[in-house]
Amino acid sequence: MSYYSPSIEKLIESFEKLPTIGHKTAQRLAFYMLDLPLEDVEEFTNSILSAKKNLHFCSKCFNISDTDPCNICSNPKRDQSIICVVEDVRDVIAMERTHEFNGVYHVLHGSISPMNGIGPDDIKIKELLSRIMDGQVKEIILATNPRVEGEATSMYISKIVKPLGVKTTRIARGIPVGGDLEYTDEITLTKALEGRSEI
Amino acid sequence: MSYYSPSIEKLIESFEKLPTIGHKTAQRLAFYMLDLPLEDVEEFTNSILSAKKNLHFCSKCFNISDTDPCNICSNPKRDQSIICVVEDVRDVIAMERTHEFNGVYHVLHGSISPMNGIGPDDIKIKELLSRIMDGQVKEIILATNPRVEGEATSMYISKIVKPLGVKTTRIARGIPVGGDLEYTDEITLTKALEGRSEI
Repeated sequence: MSYYSPSIEKLIESFEKLPTIGHKTAQRLAFYMLDLPLEDVEEFTNSILSAKKNLHFCSKCFNISDTDPCNICSNPKRDQSIICVVEDVRDVIAMERTHEFNGVYHVLHGSISPMNGIGPDDIKIKELLSRIMDGQVKEIILATNPRVEGEATSMYISKIVKPLGVKTTRIARGIPVGGDLEYTDEITLTKALEGRSEI
Repeated sequence: MSYYSPSIEKLIESFEKLPTIGHKTAQRLAFYMLDLPLEDVEEFTNSILSAKKNLHFCSKCFNISDTDPCNICSNPKRDQSIICVVEDVRDVIAMERTHEFNGVYHVLHGSISPMNGIGPDDIKIKELLSRIMDGQVKEIILATNPRVEGEATSMYISKIVKPLGVKTTRIARGIPVGGDLEYTDEITLTKALEGRSEI
């Protein structure tokens, strides 16, 4: 049974649908909205709607962007011959934060996962290949997540790309900086050993 | 420096302004919104705007409601002669959840707090008095929060209402059910002692 009036009830339900938001927080957010001046509420809803309507995927790298091509693809200072392949738009941001990568990206929008019925054709692999076919690409850096699906995706792509004569690399898997050998799982430690480099 | 396009940046900022939402959660919510179909996003923003626009305060008890008077004030089964005085709309819900109260409410929308410059005229005390003046009211239950401000508000109201010949009661303060004497603070324990009843 509900004690709220229908409009509040619906508002709380709307907030509850969002990830990380439980019933208590949903209530709190709903009442916060009701306490806000109408202009502020409209600004909030407009920022959601305009982001939703203005944003689309870059037709080159499939990163999310206000412009097409996106500001990374269209930046003349970026090296168009190195493509970093990632699973998700958020991974682009993670890479950008390092300030260490000056190439361009390719967002797959997923990873190969037969368990979930996601095959190579369901993610942007074809589009990656057609970029490589253009002939300008010198290196493909596979930066998919070091999980089963990400590894499978990387393997799949490398098997197709290597015969084309394009250098294909995979980001290193190892112990995170600040991490502890003692608490590192065996698979990570094995990868760290395999990926050891001379000093 | 920001790595996101302006629309996403603005969306994340909008979410960050909400209470309990930090930067990471704001990012997550923003991307969740971008992944949703447009209809779902519009349903979300509409539920906010329509709640904001449809809801107003009941002109009798100042509870928030789609209708005026609210469904509690207009319910013929509720005893209009007992008024439970609470600070906030959410307190009405808390009381309703007990299923033990069959009277009506009066929402003060705050409590007297000289420290924050809130005096008796800034909350709905005048409106409560004019309801009492109607003569139908037999009992006022003061259910303000057991904090300094709530106690002060209750004291203030009881001093005005008592001379009018209306029974004035205060909800009991004591150890919460399931609580532990050992971990109960002295003030609560004192109140529990004072409020003891024969068995």
